[in-house]
Amino acid sequence: MTERSWWGWGTTDHALTDAECVARAAALPGLPDRPRPVPRLADVVLPASRVAPPDGLPLSTDHDDRARHAYGKAYRDVVRALSGELPGAPDAVAHPADEDDVVRLLDWASSAGVVVVPFGGGSSVVGGVEYRGDRPWLSMDLTALDRVLEIDRVSRAARIQAGALGPVLEEQLRPHGLTLRHFPQSFEFSTLGGWLATRAGGHYATVLTHIDDLVESMRVVTPVGISESWRLPGSGAGPSPDRMFLGSEGTLGVITDAWVRLQDRPRFRASASVAFPDMSTAFGAVRAIAQAGLHPANCRLLDADEAANSGASTSGACVLVLGVESAVHPVESRLEELTGLARDSGGVVAPRREGARDTAADAWRTSFLRAPYGRDGLARMSAIVETFETACTWDRVDELYATVQDEVGAAVHEVTGVPGRVSCRFTHVYPDGPAPYFTVVGVGRPGSEVAMWDDVKTAAMEVLTRLQGTVTHHHAVGRDHRPGYDRQRPEPFAAALRAAKGALDPAGILNPGVLLDPV
Amino acid sequence: MTERSWWGWGTTDHALTDAECVARAAALPGLPDRPRPVPRLADVVLPASRVAPPDGLPLSTDHDDRARHAYGKAYRDVVRALSGELPGAPDAVAHPADEDDVVRLLDWASSAGVVVVPFGGGSSVVGGVEYRGDRPWLSMDLTALDRVLEIDRVSRAARIQAGALGPVLEEQLRPHGLTLRHFPQSFEFSTLGGWLATRAGGHYATVLTHIDDLVESMRVVTPVGISESWRLPGSGAGPSPDRMFLGSEGTLGVITDAWVRLQDRPRFRASASVAFPDMSTAFGAVRAIAQAGLHPANCRLLDADEAANSGASTSGACVLVLGVESAVHPVESRLEELTGLARDSGGVVAPRREGARDTAADAWRTSFLRAPYGRDGLARMSAIVETFETACTWDRVDELYATVQDEVGAAVHEVTGVPGRVSCRFTHVYPDGPAPYFTVVGVGRPGSEVAMWDDVKTAAMEVLTRLQGTVTHHHAVGRDHRPGYDRQRPEPFAAALRAAKGALDPAGILNPGVLLDPV
Repeated sequence: MTERSWWGWGTTDHALTDAECVARAAALPGLPDRPRPVPRLADVVLPASRVAPPDGLPLSTDHDDRARHAYGKAYRDVVRALSGELPGAPDAVAHPADEDDVVRLLDWASSAGVVVVPFGGGSSVVGGVEYRGDRPWLSMDLTALDRVLEIDRVSRAARIQAGALGPVLEEQLRPHGLTLRHFPQSFEFSTLGGWLATRAGGHYATVLTHIDDLVESMRVVTPVGISESWRLPGSGAGPSPDRMFLGSEGTLGVITDAWVRLQDRPRFRASASVAFPDMSTAFGAVRAIAQAGLHPANCRLLDADEAANSGASTSGACVLVLGVESAVHPVESRLEELTGLARDSGGVVAPRREGARDTAADAWRTSFLRAPYGRDGLARMSAIVETFETACTWDRVDELYATVQDEVGAAVHEVTGVPGRVSCRFTHVYPDGPAPYFTVVGVGRPGSEVAMWDDVKTAAMEVLTRLQGTVTHHHAVGRDHRPGYDRQRPEPFAAALRAAKGALDPAGILNPGVLLDPV
Repeated sequence: MTERSWWGWGTTDHALTDAECVARAAALPGLPDRPRPVPRLADVVLPASRVAPPDGLPLSTDHDDRARHAYGKAYRDVVRALSGELPGAPDAVAHPADEDDVVRLLDWASSAGVVVVPFGGGSSVVGGVEYRGDRPWLSMDLTALDRVLEIDRVSRAARIQAGALGPVLEEQLRPHGLTLRHFPQSFEFSTLGGWLATRAGGHYATVLTHIDDLVESMRVVTPVGISESWRLPGSGAGPSPDRMFLGSEGTLGVITDAWVRLQDRPRFRASASVAFPDMSTAFGAVRAIAQAGLHPANCRLLDADEAANSGASTSGACVLVLGVESAVHPVESRLEELTGLARDSGGVVAPRREGARDTAADAWRTSFLRAPYGRDGLARMSAIVETFETACTWDRVDELYATVQDEVGAAVHEVTGVPGRVSCRFTHVYPDGPAPYFTVVGVGRPGSEVAMWDDVKTAAMEVLTRLQGTVTHHHAVGRDHRPGYDRQRPEPFAAALRAAKGALDPAGILNPGVLLDPV
């Protein structure tokens, strides 16, 4: 059985070896010549726990357990973990076995004034599963609530517990020929509840982009009671209760299960790749596709840098990866319509044989899933490697793309002293605009990596908020995006959300600092 | 120029003549032999206004203006108006010319303790635009805010003022080759702001069913300030601000404008109709279509009664009307895929010639737009004619359909003493369930129509809430659906919404009694 990494992404067997770390850093002159060692988990220094767990509650103050729940998996979390000290570790870790445990834990925490931070797979890259205040706190690990409770084959829906990791829930659906087909990059290491709480972005590049649209109903334990919406395919009965909890990031309650919409397993699939000489031409093609109502399952645009790095192109071109799938009807004609639109917009469609998988698409996918391990290897070499993402309307995408390249590029240069890389892909596209995703790579200085990244991130947030791209399309707000989020959200909405939180969480114990200031 | 009816649906030129009323009532033995006369507007009795409009505010206490803003256009509103007395009429009608007027009106109303009910086209069928309390109140008519303010052709979006009626906004979009294509039955007599405030259901039977999905951003005047979200094609930044105002039905603020997603005008269209021997067989076909990912623009199922009454079928069959459209690509092959699925599920596809319009579809559409005028004619004959709608998952639709027929049918029989009609169609369908829409027709007793309908409606709400179909798919909650809505919404969500309202509307002036109890 593979072991989860306590300090980095995923499982330990996929982590880069020391030699791989060095090899990968070769493209970045000026880095140390060997990777920072990974501390032994047993040696990690934690503060003393301030919580004495009462009898009868599933609370642990075990050293390793606390260390594993200290942070998420952002670049800054990895760098901080590699230091061997986790000053922000939780005082205790709760392991509820069922919803009743969640209720009892919230009751106790509310009365004891102990902060509760829900923890699914722990893959947050925005500081969503840590706590940065002074109160005692517990991390509530929900992964024991991982069952598919009911399946409605007729309506193609299932009631699934929130703590189920992606593979765990898919494994239970497979015998029924069904799938949620929600595949964020974190799929293996994130949970349904985490996806719902953060409005995760998934497999589909169009239409069903966010988990939001896959939700029939949700069950949420709040400190004042359990909220359960009805299973409905659609409704117009007042503001949607589910939409208030979707994206609430643990501040309003703990999601315990949800009815979600499923798909039949696809029987027909086809993919193609299209090369473009530059991003501006590619933007036009992607826009034409997004506005044509053809709804491709995959529509990922890679700029030249991302295409080269993933192996999707060796010619310096930008590459658009298109995919269509269906459980019911052949999809070749639909793919032809899509590639036809791309060709009409100046693209060169790679030769393909009907039924064959596209090699650029495959190369990209492999690279995509391996990327976080590469990041961790580079982090051990003191490189700066992180991503940020947004969405904006088509009328602004040229300016946003250019300005990010300019200003974030300049910030990397200024902070590190040498030019870095700022590359871009689109993860999802809408009729009115794309969701661009940026990767930044630069040469860090050992011991200063987090502060350096913070400066770069500040520059990125400045561009996004100035051009009114969302501060996050699917990474969530957490603590790291708060400054930008506070500019983005309308103030009356913030006042309403604050009041709603006051009604549901009167003791203010739920993930304070996320979305709203602690009270 | 056609004149709007003050007492009934739409324009006066479409109202049934007395002879047409009598003819239409022929199928309902036991009704009076002549229609109730329509009172002259000038003769309508109103209570004295309790509001002395201050200088400088666009407030009217004109008799006719007050009478026209007393009620919406539900059956009960029509019957009440025909009585010639409007005891619930507003004390004044506000006619803001711009957003600044809205701000000043809310400031004054908050300080004066005057209730404000936003009024768009006034087509509410759920008591959403009246007031049933004891405080002085004003109806805020927003139809002067009817301009398309900006068009973004590249992103295919426009910023449109909330008071624009359907035809008014479409007329401004047409020169740009664009369309919102949101065509509720009330299209001519309802506004963008009303659609947003009530989560209206529109043209598309799948995917883009509710106006919710067409919204990029909204601007809302609340008593504590203006809330404006950013224009975004998609976002994961916290709970969606727009989703809190969508469906808020005037309780949280007054929507003044919104950026909405547009469509290119369709160049390719095709429609077909499919006959089924019974609804259960048809349910299977519609489900197969809804789950196939083909996204038809139209997918309306009519039961035998509706099919016969609309002229879509004369053979006693249930009829499914299918439509596909595109601005980009021919749609014949897609229609073939759809009719193929319907045929595989036991349907008989009506012969069609490529490119020709389907006659059943046309018959249904004409009947659909004329229906409310027919209702008003029957109301003048003291018939009971009203609709209610819901949505449920596929696993429950057979039971829900049968139970509604049984129990609502029994209620009509009991209330009226004779059997009535309870017919059904699907207005929208989702992969996990349909939105059934029911029409009830019965023999009323002059003077008792509203009370009789209330009893039938209570029976309908009882079925829906017991079987957990939503109390409304797109008619909104208003005041009439409150008892069912109070059962449907999770109590913690109600507490959160109440708190949010308290933060945005501290004086409690905004549409009190809708969604929440007045405070």
